[in-house]
Amino acid sequence: MALIECIPNISEGRRQDVLDACASAIRATGVTLLDVKADASHNRTVYTFAGEREPVKAAALALFGQALQAIDLRTHSGEHPRLGAVDVVPFVPIEGVTMADCVALAKEVGAEVARRHHVPVYLYEEAASSPARRNLEDIRRGEFEGLAAKMTQDEWKPDFGPAAPHPSAGASVVGARMPLIAYNINLATNRLDVAKKIAAAIRQSSGGLRFVKAMGVELADRGIVQVSMNLTNYEKTPVFRVFELVKREAARYGVAVLESEVVGLIPSGALTASAAWYLQLDGFSDDQVLENKLRSSGIDDR
Amino acid sequence: MALIECIPNISEGRRQDVLDACASAIRATGVTLLDVKADASHNRTVYTFAGEREPVKAAALALFGQALQAIDLRTHSGEHPRLGAVDVVPFVPIEGVTMADCVALAKEVGAEVARRHHVPVYLYEEAASSPARRNLEDIRRGEFEGLAAKMTQDEWKPDFGPAAPHPSAGASVVGARMPLIAYNINLATNRLDVAKKIAAAIRQSSGGLRFVKAMGVELADRGIVQVSMNLTNYEKTPVFRVFELVKREAARYGVAVLESEVVGLIPSGALTASAAWYLQLDGFSDDQVLENKLRSSGIDDR
Repeated sequence: MALIECIPNISEGRRQDVLDACASAIRATGVTLLDVKADASHNRTVYTFAGEREPVKAAALALFGQALQAIDLRTHSGEHPRLGAVDVVPFVPIEGVTMADCVALAKEVGAEVARRHHVPVYLYEEAASSPARRNLEDIRRGEFEGLAAKMTQDEWKPDFGPAAPHPSAGASVVGARMPLIAYNINLATNRLDVAKKIAAAIRQSSGGLRFVKAMGVELADRGIVQVSMNLTNYEKTPVFRVFELVKREAARYGVAVLESEVVGLIPSGALTASAAWYLQLDGFSDDQVLENKLRSSGIDDR
Repeated sequence: MALIECIPNISEGRRQDVLDACASAIRATGVTLLDVKADASHNRTVYTFAGEREPVKAAALALFGQALQAIDLRTHSGEHPRLGAVDVVPFVPIEGVTMADCVALAKEVGAEVARRHHVPVYLYEEAASSPARRNLEDIRRGEFEGLAAKMTQDEWKPDFGPAAPHPSAGASVVGARMPLIAYNINLATNRLDVAKKIAAAIRQSSGGLRFVKAMGVELADRGIVQVSMNLTNYEKTPVFRVFELVKREAARYGVAVLESEVVGLIPSGALTASAAWYLQLDGFSDDQVLENKLRSSGIDDR
């Protein structure tokens, strides 16, 4: 089994008939639609779906087909920055699939979108064709309204499709990234300065762990503080290492860890890796997880 | 999703045509046949299969149908003790299902086997109708050959079916139990007495944790020793507590833990519970595991 998640963002958050048609187009391919978050003031909707490679590819393309005929950015307004009618489409490896597989899938979808719809496509994050195109914010700067001028520059030639915006659909950004884990650690103190110092110590931007974004916040109602984090690559910067480092930094200030929390979803691999590390499990393989074994295969015929 | 494992043992380990027919009968119900272990000297075969409740029930009944017409205990011999042609049938809760569900399933299957085949059925382990019937060994004592005499005693009236053995099939033992985890901890010492003292300290039989069986063994080729364990209920006696207690006992003798190992399979719940404990995860629910969420459901229609 190769399980891939896709979280496309489209530039429509108000017309329910359009959102329903997009959801139906996604579902018709056999993927599991996990979540739909429409925001009217952003005028933007985020779909989350997952499945095997081919259905996920079909669902992403079906969404393009449906959304591009319904959305015209020339009459679109909303609070959220956007470059395209289908704005951003990341593919995320979940199980039995590598990042390279998701990069390949992003390129296939990008090429096919350009071919079918004559929409220029930029590849981003792990699929980016150069370091300057890794960050979504850099690609999207100037938005739809500035896109025609931006695309006259050689450095903003798209990865696929015409070197000019699609009249109604602008351009789309397609790529691959690791799943995000929203992870918070609560401290047994009300000293916000301690939470902020720990956040600064552990986040990449100020010298800490590579795939950690962190800030210190106050939980006023409980009289405590929190180190609030996004872990952007749990394979390379695992949850247990983040937890242990925060605990160690907190001890430096005489502060104990009350508890930690996962906000939303966490891939099971992030938890089994933590269990294996703490239990010092030697030579442990994910194939030894009973449920994985059940899903991956029965025995050979005999 | 309600995932149940079933590990029936039948009294035939030599005639491949019979074993194949039983495997086919199991597979035809749509369950996943995970393993078949035939032992010619025991003259006994263990099937392992898993699936949703109804297919698992159908597979267990299909196996009875197939095995009872092929096996005659009056002409059966083998090293392993046995009471019935289909000897033991445990149901094990894996995911999205309680022990009570498996007990109910064991009772349904037991009643149906008695109705269809006029084979007496004893319920055991978690499904047992009295404490005296929890242990398989107590029910099986005397074996097929002693069964007619044993069943004349009031205390060995079966839970379902006639109060006398089936002529060719004897009696069957059906029940529900937790999955076993075979778990070993290797110590950085060659002192076998230390491993034995730790095993004695942590196992139930000599005063330790309720659902731990343990012994100290020597790994001569590596020049170290091991605490070798079976964990018979990982929900009530979790892996992390066993590991921490062994580590603490080892420290008492100035010995460090080298590593631990899982032999064979481990339910993912045993690992996520360990991760949650070490990471001090507050209010964590298995629904937050991305793969569980994917499998349990998509979003509601809207």
